[in-house]
Amino acid sequence: MVLGGDGYLGWPTALHLSEAGHQVAVADNFVRRHYDNELGVESLVPIEPLRTRIAVWEELTGKKIGMYVGDLTDAIFTYHIIRDFEPEAVVHFAEQRAAPYSMIDRAHAVYTQQNNVVGNLNLLFAIAETNPDIHLVKLGTMGEYGTPNIDIEEGWLDLEHNGRTDRVLFPKRPGSFYHLSKVHDSHNIEFACRIWGIRATDLNQGVVYGQQTSETARDDRLATRYDYDAVFGTVLNRFVIQSVIGEPLMVYGNGSQVRGIIEIRDTVRCLQLACENPAERGEFRVFNQMTQSLSITQMADTIARVSPEKVTIEHLANPRVEEEGHHYNVAHSGMVELGLEPHLLSDTLIESLFEITKRFAHRVRREAMIPTIDWRRASSLIGL
Amino acid sequence: MVLGGDGYLGWPTALHLSEAGHQVAVADNFVRRHYDNELGVESLVPIEPLRTRIAVWEELTGKKIGMYVGDLTDAIFTYHIIRDFEPEAVVHFAEQRAAPYSMIDRAHAVYTQQNNVVGNLNLLFAIAETNPDIHLVKLGTMGEYGTPNIDIEEGWLDLEHNGRTDRVLFPKRPGSFYHLSKVHDSHNIEFACRIWGIRATDLNQGVVYGQQTSETARDDRLATRYDYDAVFGTVLNRFVIQSVIGEPLMVYGNGSQVRGIIEIRDTVRCLQLACENPAERGEFRVFNQMTQSLSITQMADTIARVSPEKVTIEHLANPRVEEEGHHYNVAHSGMVELGLEPHLLSDTLIESLFEITKRFAHRVRREAMIPTIDWRRASSLIGL
Repeated sequence: MVLGGDGYLGWPTALHLSEAGHQVAVADNFVRRHYDNELGVESLVPIEPLRTRIAVWEELTGKKIGMYVGDLTDAIFTYHIIRDFEPEAVVHFAEQRAAPYSMIDRAHAVYTQQNNVVGNLNLLFAIAETNPDIHLVKLGTMGEYGTPNIDIEEGWLDLEHNGRTDRVLFPKRPGSFYHLSKVHDSHNIEFACRIWGIRATDLNQGVVYGQQTSETARDDRLATRYDYDAVFGTVLNRFVIQSVIGEPLMVYGNGSQVRGIIEIRDTVRCLQLACENPAERGEFRVFNQMTQSLSITQMADTIARVSPEKVTIEHLANPRVEEEGHHYNVAHSGMVELGLEPHLLSDTLIESLFEITKRFAHRVRREAMIPTIDWRRASSLIGL
Repeated sequence: MVLGGDGYLGWPTALHLSEAGHQVAVADNFVRRHYDNELGVESLVPIEPLRTRIAVWEELTGKKIGMYVGDLTDAIFTYHIIRDFEPEAVVHFAEQRAAPYSMIDRAHAVYTQQNNVVGNLNLLFAIAETNPDIHLVKLGTMGEYGTPNIDIEEGWLDLEHNGRTDRVLFPKRPGSFYHLSKVHDSHNIEFACRIWGIRATDLNQGVVYGQQTSETARDDRLATRYDYDAVFGTVLNRFVIQSVIGEPLMVYGNGSQVRGIIEIRDTVRCLQLACENPAERGEFRVFNQMTQSLSITQMADTIARVSPEKVTIEHLANPRVEEEGHHYNVAHSGMVELGLEPHLLSDTLIESLFEITKRFAHRVRREAMIPTIDWRRASSLIGL
């Protein structure tokens, strides 16, 4: 069961699991489409309604995908879907996932934490009360860690202090109210594993890029989102679009900030691997779901090198509060040990992104790419 | 300004700050009195309505205390009180504070986290948008740390890993959805200090015992709560009551669990010291607000030794999921450096508690002391 199965990654994950032979259902409340209405933006690539997507998939493959429409903060709904579908594994993408959105103002910060934390709590209780054997596969983010001056391990840290040792949750220093919501989730899930013996995998995912998987590429009507706006667009996708429409690549600050990244095809493969290799009962298992680390400048330079047009790079005052020139060394071997064969950022992938972008370039709204949400102000609502 | 100023500690803190010459207002939504209605229990010592308490204090001392009635999860209310009263410091006690209450079932877990986290977020934004110079003095709990196998520092930890060093938030392993809510708060506050430059002191308080301060002792109508039920009663107060009414002292598990404790007179003094010595702008300052560590068995033995009656000790299967026979060595020098002179658990204090208890022993409901909330079950509602 894929929660948030109408979203950028939830939908390709549902198709990938279906293609792999699993019986799949998705649940969604369509709030991601509502954020578009609120912000006045839309996916560069047009997307079909969920019902259409599911019908097309069945038409092409003969495989059915179940559909539940509702909200995880509604406990009746959450218990219902777990009891009705009886999943072996629940992949939980159904959270507000944009850092800038959570930083708009008080209302958006509170919404993000309430939506994410309460939805996840309801899910934990639904699993514990229905069938504690269900494997929770939860999406976290590399942004939970921030940029500590020490190496980042996979969720847990063996430490020594005053001559004694312990294995503790890796200390987090997240960079937005959104990232904080995922830290809160992780603590809640670890506790649920400890007291109820449920099994959970927390996937701290890097910045995702790319727009197609082998499943979504079969038909335009199976396409997933391709966001480029300053709120929901991720940096690599945004750079590709800026280069195609002849705008400078907008780098926040000096660009030395390093991020873990992962290609969309690797994301859906990681989800499959996590589902097919469940955590033990009582285990809170954490993977860093990323395949390489690049600075923002390295990402911009890569796009500039591959782009057929001449590309310029522009530095903006950083609207975020984040470190530049920091240490960044991340363990991420867990998924490879389960069988992931990473696609690293390659000319080929970027070229296919250029093709998609060119095809829909007429839909780009340039002003949507300008960041207007300032971390240092408690309210950026007026700038939106 | 004391938020939660009608509660067990909020009320004595308000009086203590007023007595020290500060201009004080309290805010409360009276939900603590509602929990009593829900659970069918009440404070052993009768308490007056907040309006009466404030009037009595003015009658005795000539000092006025302002009163705001409302809920911090209502942002309009929270912004209003900060703008209307213009506090220099806000002492934030206004959270659901009982671990067992948060473990009743899904609804109580969600209520606890939503109430505590959203109320605290609203307060952070109200401070940031009104006057970032206001000092937030926030009540946390020693229970946030759990019982790690390493020494517990005051909120932050200097660590070395793979030859590199960093100062990080001390890793937490809390033991209930309530304790988790305080961990979430701490992360949110640290972030607010970092991005907005507000000043905050997080007080990780041990188990509080005692019922009187020099202010509340002046008049029966100024008395604060004295809880003894299995949900809101703290362990030392409960032991005193059990010994007075001739019931065995109920120890959960083998009693080797160690807790940090603090006497109520030290609590109000700590709050005064924190307010009068504010954190720096941008600083997230943490103190472990406790004065000594004792195992549950040591607490029971102390009560048994002092009690005029013969006392027996009974061990119950532990309804909580917690470690026994663990390491526990806690740094707590910060408050002493600010000027705290701790009252350690003494015969004198316990004897005064015996007096109060005897006076109201006819009000004890024995069945309220039996624990019915089981950490290992996702729902204990039926047992209540």
